Amino acid sequence: MSYAKLDAHCRSLGALEHALAILGTDEATHMAPGGGEQRAEAMASLSGMHHRQATTPEVGDWIEAAKAEALDPEQKTAVSELERSYINMTCLPSDFVERKMRTSMRSEQLWRAARPNGDWKTFEPALQEVVEMTREEASMRADVLGLAPYDALMEQFDPGNRTETVTPVFEELKSFLVEFLPRALDAQEQRHAKCPLKALSGDYPVERQKALGIAMMKAVGFDMNHGSLSISDHPFCGGVPSDVRMTTRYRTDEFLSALMGILHETGHGLYEQNLPKQWAHWPSGKARGMSIHESQSLFVEKQIGRNPAFWTFALPLVDRYLQENWSMEDLLPHVHLIKRGKIRVDADEVTYPLHVILRYELEQELLAGRLEVKDLPEAWDIRMQASLGISTLDDPKNGPMQDVHWPSGAFGYFPSYTLGALMAAQQWAAIVKINPDVDRQIAAGDFEAVNAWRRDNIWSKASTASTPEILRQATGEVLNPAYFIAHLEARYGG
Amino acid sequence: MSYAKLDAHCRSLGALEHALAILGTDEATHMAPGGGEQRAEAMASLSGMHHRQATTPEVGDWIEAAKAEALDPEQKTAVSELERSYINMTCLPSDFVERKMRTSMRSEQLWRAARPNGDWKTFEPALQEVVEMTREEASMRADVLGLAPYDALMEQFDPGNRTETVTPVFEELKSFLVEFLPRALDAQEQRHAKCPLKALSGDYPVERQKALGIAMMKAVGFDMNHGSLSISDHPFCGGVPSDVRMTTRYRTDEFLSALMGILHETGHGLYEQNLPKQWAHWPSGKARGMSIHESQSLFVEKQIGRNPAFWTFALPLVDRYLQENWSMEDLLPHVHLIKRGKIRVDADEVTYPLHVILRYELEQELLAGRLEVKDLPEAWDIRMQASLGISTLDDPKNGPMQDVHWPSGAFGYFPSYTLGALMAAQQWAAIVKINPDVDRQIAAGDFEAVNAWRRDNIWSKASTASTPEILRQATGEVLNPAYFIAHLEARYGG
Ligand SMILES: [Zn+2]
Ligand SMILES: [Zn+2]
Repeated sequence: MSYAKLDAHCRSLGALEHALAILGTDEATHMAPGGGEQRAEAMASLSGMHHRQATTPEVGDWIEAAKAEALDPEQKTAVSELERSYINMTCLPSDFVERKMRTSMRSEQLWRAARPNGDWKTFEPALQEVVEMTREEASMRADVLGLAPYDALMEQFDPGNRTETVTPVFEELKSFLVEFLPRALDAQEQRHAKCPLKALSGDYPVERQKALGIAMMKAVGFDMNHGSLSISDHPFCGGVPSDVRMTTRYRTDEFLSALMGILHETGHGLYEQNLPKQWAHWPSGKARGMSIHESQSLFVEKQIGRNPAFWTFALPLVDRYLQENWSMEDLLPHVHLIKRGKIRVDADEVTYPLHVILRYELEQELLAGRLEVKDLPEAWDIRMQASLGISTLDDPKNGPMQDVHWPSGAFGYFPSYTLGALMAAQQWAAIVKINPDVDRQIAAGDFEAVNAWRRDNIWSKASTASTPEILRQATGEVLNPAYFIAHLEARYGG
Repeated sequence: MSYAKLDAHCRSLGALEHALAILGTDEATHMAPGGGEQRAEAMASLSGMHHRQATTPEVGDWIEAAKAEALDPEQKTAVSELERSYINMTCLPSDFVERKMRTSMRSEQLWRAARPNGDWKTFEPALQEVVEMTREEASMRADVLGLAPYDALMEQFDPGNRTETVTPVFEELKSFLVEFLPRALDAQEQRHAKCPLKALSGDYPVERQKALGIAMMKAVGFDMNHGSLSISDHPFCGGVPSDVRMTTRYRTDEFLSALMGILHETGHGLYEQNLPKQWAHWPSGKARGMSIHESQSLFVEKQIGRNPAFWTFALPLVDRYLQENWSMEDLLPHVHLIKRGKIRVDADEVTYPLHVILRYELEQELLAGRLEVKDLPEAWDIRMQASLGISTLDDPKNGPMQDVHWPSGAFGYFPSYTLGALMAAQQWAAIVKINPDVDRQIAAGDFEAVNAWRRDNIWSKASTASTPEILRQATGEVLNPAYFIAHLEARYGG
């Protein structure tokens, strides 16, 4: 039976994915400094094995044969999702895949070297090469998938996301934000004038911050029997669903940034831990994609973690672990601080989408050939000035050189961040609608109702439907920016 | 060129070995408690991949072809060592390998369950089954390798070790020890009567013990850029040569057991770190086998770490890290404490070989069919009484049920421990012969001369010759128990 062959095939790939996930996490957390070269070689070799096994022509034959077998609905979904993944993995000739990997590795290395000095001139030709290859790639993917080129790129990260729906949503959001941001900053200024911002600084040993972080993780539903929290230079959520490896970094002079980072990664971790275990090795049992994943992390970080109700529950914990008796009035202005800035990763929830939409627009221009890399700094600057009122023309390091995505060849990825923020707000609204008591529950440290809804509507769905379809089934409507806009109005409108 | 194909083949196997080594270490040190099931499945699948790749018939063809190619001497050695490993891996039919793995896994699980209560009756049939399969295995290996059955088993762990040379050495050692042990115990009693043993207890926080351990590791030559020290239930040395993962466990009421454990594992780690890097992926570039590995750990633990000269260097470090100003007179009696006991892993360097020789003799009886498992408790007891003067007849948990080796199907492994101790003494003697100044160097914390000899004569040799041949080239003679015997006489003879 071909279905059984596919099941064994997925298990074998799953073992390699398990190894790559743990080796990747280990590299960032526990590897000896000198172990990197051998680790890189081993991981490249295992990735190659994975790619060869995943794309072997037999798999295509088994998929065809399995479609004719008597399967139950879950098995049918599993086979069709495997087919989707198989097509996405086999749609590029393998010599192109290798050429692209070499080009983007070179470009990423060059970027790492040139970025600290903002040396755009050195970096420019490498990025131009990546853009040219990505144009080729998009057109090949588009041909196989029957999609527009940019849609074919987004399809890798979020199956079903299309510019046709994303662009009008982003247009509406941008119009709103350009009007809203000055108003929200004004409102904040007035609040701070009335009640000056009080520094939350102190001396917070790493061990106590970690204990506080773990207490919060457990409270919001993270299962410490299937996960852990350690330290790395850049916070992330890695590992495997049965053993989710969360990381953060600490400053000892303040606690809020590490804690909000932990809440964000806990959102990713909850999604992974609650995927359906019996389908763990099939693509249909894995997390859907980048935007739903980000909707889960932003749900915990922004919808729960920056909700004043949450701090009714959380402030006593801060007091217990850090011996700091902050009041709601001390804390909330920090949790809700907004600020114009050049850097996407430092942005708050009001300004972040403007950074993303700028990239979304520019990468489409680049790929369509309406913009060339040499003109990117100016194009970036014009949009930056229009949306955030900031110029980066003299500061390419903090302009078009700030992100790793383009130098490493990841185009079509950026929209996921803001789509995740929109979806998180839409999910929150769906919960509030059927459970108006949710703020009171959260203030009491009871996250079960919120998690039950997410378990039923998001986590258990894994990859059994496309990204937009999962959102529609969960919330009863398609992507609608009104919820996120209302959320920002309520929280920052003054 | 077939040699190039073999090189790529070894690199690919090396990636899987890297993954298995790191996953194995991670399991014992950082895995979430609930992650075990998925980890076991992933590792079994990766091991299967490794076995299939390693034993694919093409490799045999490439080896044959490569032998006819123009290769330099190192390449020739690499191919012939790969051939040795290929033959050892392919000499059993794959259905037998699977059957044996299932049988020994079941038996090991049963052992884990039955051991705490010393339930020999429940365990006995499982062990009987393992013994029967191992008899089959030994005979198949013997046929392919042209060796006696027990030699064919030892060959897996120590290429070139033969009963023909090991048995007379062990006979001589046993005769000596049976006479020596009562004498050494007497001498110890007299020393303790004159100067009573002073407890080395105190309150030693884990972090300070770890800092002391790392200071010692660095001092004896461990490269912290290519390794680390963490905590696990059972100390071990895992990982890969570029990233050696050492572990230990700590008690906070005394420091000596963790520290001696660290020194032991450091010996293993030094060997791994100093293997020739350019051959890391070929069998000829890997550690030779269990007995040479153990000779390296015992060299550091016993020849260096229990040498009084070492403590001239080490006591000030103990004082610096633990704030304990122990004198040589306080400490040495603990470092040199000897004691009859039932348990191999708790034994000191005088009694340990008696435990090993007992197993070496009994496992040969079992495999030859001169002894059956049902008669093992009596046979064990008789030898235990004769060599150590202790009965285990009423205590199978601390008799034939104490070790994991037999229940897991590892026969032919035990002699490695004592061969390692003998070789360590022989290597030490070879060093002293050309460098009579060695004690003074060690007392001054200078381990470079000792390490230079080991680097040239052991570490850099990796698997370029058989176990006995490496010893012979290094020390100028074949295995000779006189050095170990002289070492025990000098240290414990009174
Ligand atoms: Zn995230
Ligand atoms: Zn050892």
